[in-house]
Amino acid sequence: MSTVGPVKRLALIGVGLIGGSWVLGLRRAGLVSTVVGCGRSMANLDTARERGIIDDATTDPREAVRGADLVVVAVPLGAVGPVLATVRDDLAPDAVITDVGSAKASVLADAAEALGEHSARFVPGHPIAGNEKSGAAAAFPELFDNRRVILTPEDSTDTVAVERVAGLWEAVGASVARMSAAHHDDVLAATSHLPHMLAYSLVDTLSRWSDRDEVFAYAAGGFRDFTRIASSDPEMWRDICLANRDALVVAMDRYMADLSELREQVRAGDAAAIENLFRHARETRERFMATLES
Amino acid sequence: MSTVGPVKRLALIGVGLIGGSWVLGLRRAGLVSTVVGCGRSMANLDTARERGIIDDATTDPREAVRGADLVVVAVPLGAVGPVLATVRDDLAPDAVITDVGSAKASVLADAAEALGEHSARFVPGHPIAGNEKSGAAAAFPELFDNRRVILTPEDSTDTVAVERVAGLWEAVGASVARMSAAHHDDVLAATSHLPHMLAYSLVDTLSRWSDRDEVFAYAAGGFRDFTRIASSDPEMWRDICLANRDALVVAMDRYMADLSELREQVRAGDAAAIENLFRHARETRERFMATLES
Ligand SMILES: NC(=O)c1ccc[n+]([C@@H]2O[C@H](COP(=O)([O-])OP(=O)(O)OC[C@H]3O[C@@H](n4cnc5c(N)ncnc54)[C@H](OP(=O)(O)O)[C@@H]3O)[C@@H](O)[C@H]2O)c1
Ligand SMILES: NC(=O)c1ccc[n+]([C@@H]2O[C@H](COP(=O)([O-])OP(=O)(O)OC[C@H]3O[C@@H](n4cnc5c(N)ncnc54)[C@H](OP(=O)(O)O)[C@@H]3O)[C@@H](O)[C@H]2O)c1
Repeated sequence: MSTVGPVKRLALIGVGLIGGSWVLGLRRAGLVSTVVGCGRSMANLDTARERGIIDDATTDPREAVRGADLVVVAVPLGAVGPVLATVRDDLAPDAVITDVGSAKASVLADAAEALGEHSARFVPGHPIAGNEKSGAAAAFPELFDNRRVILTPEDSTDTVAVERVAGLWEAVGASVARMSAAHHDDVLAATSHLPHMLAYSLVDTLSRWSDRDEVFAYAAGGFRDFTRIASSDPEMWRDICLANRDALVVAMDRYMADLSELREQVRAGDAAAIENLFRHARETRERFMATLES
Repeated sequence: MSTVGPVKRLALIGVGLIGGSWVLGLRRAGLVSTVVGCGRSMANLDTARERGIIDDATTDPREAVRGADLVVVAVPLGAVGPVLATVRDDLAPDAVITDVGSAKASVLADAAEALGEHSARFVPGHPIAGNEKSGAAAAFPELFDNRRVILTPEDSTDTVAVERVAGLWEAVGASVARMSAAHHDDVLAATSHLPHMLAYSLVDTLSRWSDRDEVFAYAAGGFRDFTRIASSDPEMWRDICLANRDALVVAMDRYMADLSELREQVRAGDAAAIENLFRHARETRERFMATLES
């Protein structure tokens, strides 16, 4: 873990699960003095203040960033570009700006367009942690313990800014990896965005079943776990779909080709092919689980 | 809960998660004297004996059922027909026979063919409980606490036999519902069999990804939960696919139509349609979770 100096004034635009948890972790590590929270509604900001996440609250992003040495943008992806454009002229000349969005190529494009000369100090980030809850009430400081954070800086990104953001993630228990935005978007389409589509679609399909109430009445524990991610925030996930559209469509197409093949094997009663697929999937998953636990 | 007399001699063919847990629950309730366990391998039966699930062990189903007043068949679905045909001539004249298979029309057909005059005392059952583990080592007596069991007797099924099986499920904490086998198979295709196909397929798709190791390395908690059911027993699930093939193919087709529609909305960047689907799915799931908790 690199040594990292404290943040004097942190502007948090979007005081929700992710931004709120990062700040709580930084407070636990003694790494932040003052936090100004910004959101659209005072209700959530009041909760954040009561929970000790933020010191000051405002609904004006420009006011929030003034004098801040670190600006964290933790809003749904569709709001990142507009927020950056709004605050640009109020940023301190050496402010480090970072985000937590679940897709990265779109955020880099937004930052390049919105931030002008500040874009060299914009460090795109994505913590691989979270759950289906939202808002300041859901934040907790342990969220990033032993989790990964991916940073996707460009060659032109200020290395001091990158180191600073990396250090602040490590300080809350995360390990930091770097990769290109395009690669990040491909990997996350597979492991996160695609499963969310599958879960949302499953619940939607079942809600259209003719005997739907009975269908849900006989759903067991496996179903509950399987669809938990379908309780995720619709606005956030709409924005992820739009931001990572190309990679997500590729992932959905590959998946549907695979599922059609299995459907055909089931229809044909091809016992060996079906068992093969199940066995291979189980082995793959268990190998993966073992690496996680080791 | 109906009052129910104890089982004198219970023959358990297939001493695994489901059969073993039912017996442990019956022992906890003081409702069984002697249990004879039958399986293909002595290793699992030894475990079952050490864990106090069974008193005697045999690999011969005919020996197992002799003198038993209750015969529980808890093997993968493909083995149900062969097991019933094997034991038929050794069944006591008033033995009640039941199974726990995850599909029911196929089991009814198997029983009609294999059991002859005994088929009137065959009570098809399916506990809506379980997990991805297998074998006697995985059994535990609380598995059915507050869970549902579906019985699918026919008009010709002996009502005393049905009452007896229902009472023995209630005695281990379950609530019992009755419906037709066809209806059971349609409902379970939707809530259980389809999600298993989706999870197996997802892991399979990702295992074919070009940067597969990295894909799995960045999978988060949501992915682990989502794919937990892909660690289920391949043989058991192969048999479920074959046994409930027609209903499962219908369910997969409906699902793929729904997923294709979402894929098209993502491709087109149709923000409103995407958000609508997510919102509707989340609301449906939360309404369903609320009924479970109440
Ligand atoms: N949840 C996860 O599992 C997860 C994981 C990794 C990354 N992420 C990413 O993290 C970001 C935030 O997600 P989250 O889960 O923390 O969401 P969240 O809990 O809903 O928090 C987002 C906050 O942003 C505020 N907000 C929304 N639009 C805004 C705008 N235009 N201007 C200012 N504030 C705005 C909201 O408050 P008001 O409604 O009061 O404005 C809300 O409290 C997203 O980009 C997401 O892709 C999420
Ligand atoms: N797991 C679930 O979530 C769940 C839920 C509801 C219903 N079910 C149904 O319950 C049944 C059993 O599932 P389970 O989860 O209990 O499986 P399990 O733990 O694998 O137990 C099945 C047992 O049957 C034995 N067996 C397999 N083939 C046999 C044969 N031809 N003759 C005699 N014994 C045989 C196996 O032992 P040997 O290998 O030593 O023979 C094994 O211990 C299945 O029909 C399934 O559809 C399962």
